[in-house]
Amino acid sequence: MAIGSDKKFLLVGAGAIGSIYGWRLKQGGSSVSVVCRSNYEVVKKAGFQIDSTFYGAGSFIPDAVYSSCKQAADQSHEEFDYVLVCTKNLPNISNPANTIKDVVVSEKVTIVLIQNGIDIEKYYKQLFPNNRVITSIAHIFAKQVETGVITNVGQASLIFNVFKGTNDSEFTQQDVEICDSFRECLLAGNVLATISDNIQRERWVKIVWNISISPVSVLTSASNTREMLDCPETRALLIASMHEAIKVGEAVLNTTLTTDIPSDQLPLQIIDKVDSLPKPFYPSMMIDMQNSRPMEHQVIVKNVIDYANKFNINVPILQTMYSLMILMEKKYLS
Amino acid sequence: MAIGSDKKFLLVGAGAIGSIYGWRLKQGGSSVSVVCRSNYEVVKKAGFQIDSTFYGAGSFIPDAVYSSCKQAADQSHEEFDYVLVCTKNLPNISNPANTIKDVVVSEKVTIVLIQNGIDIEKYYKQLFPNNRVITSIAHIFAKQVETGVITNVGQASLIFNVFKGTNDSEFTQQDVEICDSFRECLLAGNVLATISDNIQRERWVKIVWNISISPVSVLTSASNTREMLDCPETRALLIASMHEAIKVGEAVLNTTLTTDIPSDQLPLQIIDKVDSLPKPFYPSMMIDMQNSRPMEHQVIVKNVIDYANKFNINVPILQTMYSLMILMEKKYLS
Repeated sequence: MAIGSDKKFLLVGAGAIGSIYGWRLKQGGSSVSVVCRSNYEVVKKAGFQIDSTFYGAGSFIPDAVYSSCKQAADQSHEEFDYVLVCTKNLPNISNPANTIKDVVVSEKVTIVLIQNGIDIEKYYKQLFPNNRVITSIAHIFAKQVETGVITNVGQASLIFNVFKGTNDSEFTQQDVEICDSFRECLLAGNVLATISDNIQRERWVKIVWNISISPVSVLTSASNTREMLDCPETRALLIASMHEAIKVGEAVLNTTLTTDIPSDQLPLQIIDKVDSLPKPFYPSMMIDMQNSRPMEHQVIVKNVIDYANKFNINVPILQTMYSLMILMEKKYLS
Repeated sequence: MAIGSDKKFLLVGAGAIGSIYGWRLKQGGSSVSVVCRSNYEVVKKAGFQIDSTFYGAGSFIPDAVYSSCKQAADQSHEEFDYVLVCTKNLPNISNPANTIKDVVVSEKVTIVLIQNGIDIEKYYKQLFPNNRVITSIAHIFAKQVETGVITNVGQASLIFNVFKGTNDSEFTQQDVEICDSFRECLLAGNVLATISDNIQRERWVKIVWNISISPVSVLTSASNTREMLDCPETRALLIASMHEAIKVGEAVLNTTLTTDIPSDQLPLQIIDKVDSLPKPFYPSMMIDMQNSRPMEHQVIVKNVIDYANKFNINVPILQTMYSLMILMEKKYLS
């Protein structure tokens, strides 16, 4: 059996993204249990049916399926080595760390955050100051086409490291061992797993496109990337908002966001990449809006604005789009 | 009979706003013909039925009802003294001045613009360089509740003067006479008519609230003033966008926008005024959006941004909201 087989994973929030990582870890030989909410009944009965252009078609039958972390804590016999958090991150509604408090039973549990946004680790560090938090960037295309049925395009990738605040330098021997062990479990499932020396830089580069594309899509009656790029006004707006986010990220990290190109070329590089995608896509924030669900505007936009204020950086574009989204959401949630 | 009775008016664009002014001019003794589009059949047959809290209920039967300016030119026996333009102003779609070219048959015709926006006079001055253009600010609440049926709250007011570019100083004797004559016609119909020495200042003060309230409403799924003011984020956004517009207006006019208070207090004064209205309202730009009609974003937003660029003033909030509206409109018009 594969190398990672002695590790016990609990996947919290087994939607499209989470289930792919769970599936790959399980395929790699690890024990993987899941906490499901909306898809609990279906997954409990039959697991996940996954169709992937890279991994082929298959079933993911978790070792156990729970309806809550409380139930997972009550019913599992030993504690989990890794708790993978793949839920939506909505700290403006409730503390996201609370969700997992029943399963973080000792300091030995490593919390792995597979979530978007900036400054998301603080919620977990505050509640679990003595637990190791691995923060990660997921590059993956996956979609739950119906309950428990997932489609995936391409290989799953995960870039990660232990969270050390904005200064990612002081890793302990145990940090390294735990990251290596997690990496081996992922590699065994053929996930492109990378330990990054500067995971916060990866996070900021990802936010640069997320903070621009998501609000513009939401605020223009649900546009896809093609529509946004074909309209000269919103193309320019995407670029201008990316520049604002880069300025903030560089102030926070006290270094450039890019190493291969000057960071003022990053927006055009991102635009070119999105431009050349075979199919346009809709950001997940827009999907949430369309389904009248809360949007992740706190971790994707507001936490960046808060940093901007702290560093006295003007971000009028981000602030404008954030304010508009707040009222829009308030209306559809009420 | 009333003083203004020897004047011939042609009202182009007889919607809610236009029909009230037409009605009052007619009641005051002037000859008033109208050019209707969507409501032509109904108005041709039975005129307008108007219910006003200030003027009471009544009918407005125009001297003639035309379906186009071409028809008005062909069928009317003498030329009009005043052509009142109350149409939507959409220079991004077509030159608004073209609409009236058939009825501006000589230099004696005075063009009266009863339209929102900044820098709207240039379209008419370019096409009719030798005609007198009166530019005005309408303060009036009116609504076409069904075709040809109008409700009106309060007294109608019109502040106006002959257009002289940004420098409103050099009025000729004939300018003064023609304004006085127009004023008398309006007063005869009990319209609060005021000749302003600085009509462009009035126009900018009106744009300050229009440029903020209209885009915010459009971009937040059709909000009314109450919703916008009750949300702290959009309340702050309204104020911040007003400050941007004030800066541009003061650069263009080379003077302060306000005379009674420091101009940086103008946003709060406007907010207080809107806050204290007995009923919330929806800006007309939002109504256009909701009905999938083109929005007046060129004259209400873009012309201000163009001035900002000319004067090297940063208006990132206005630019952001404008760009978002462009894509939104593009999608619903397509």
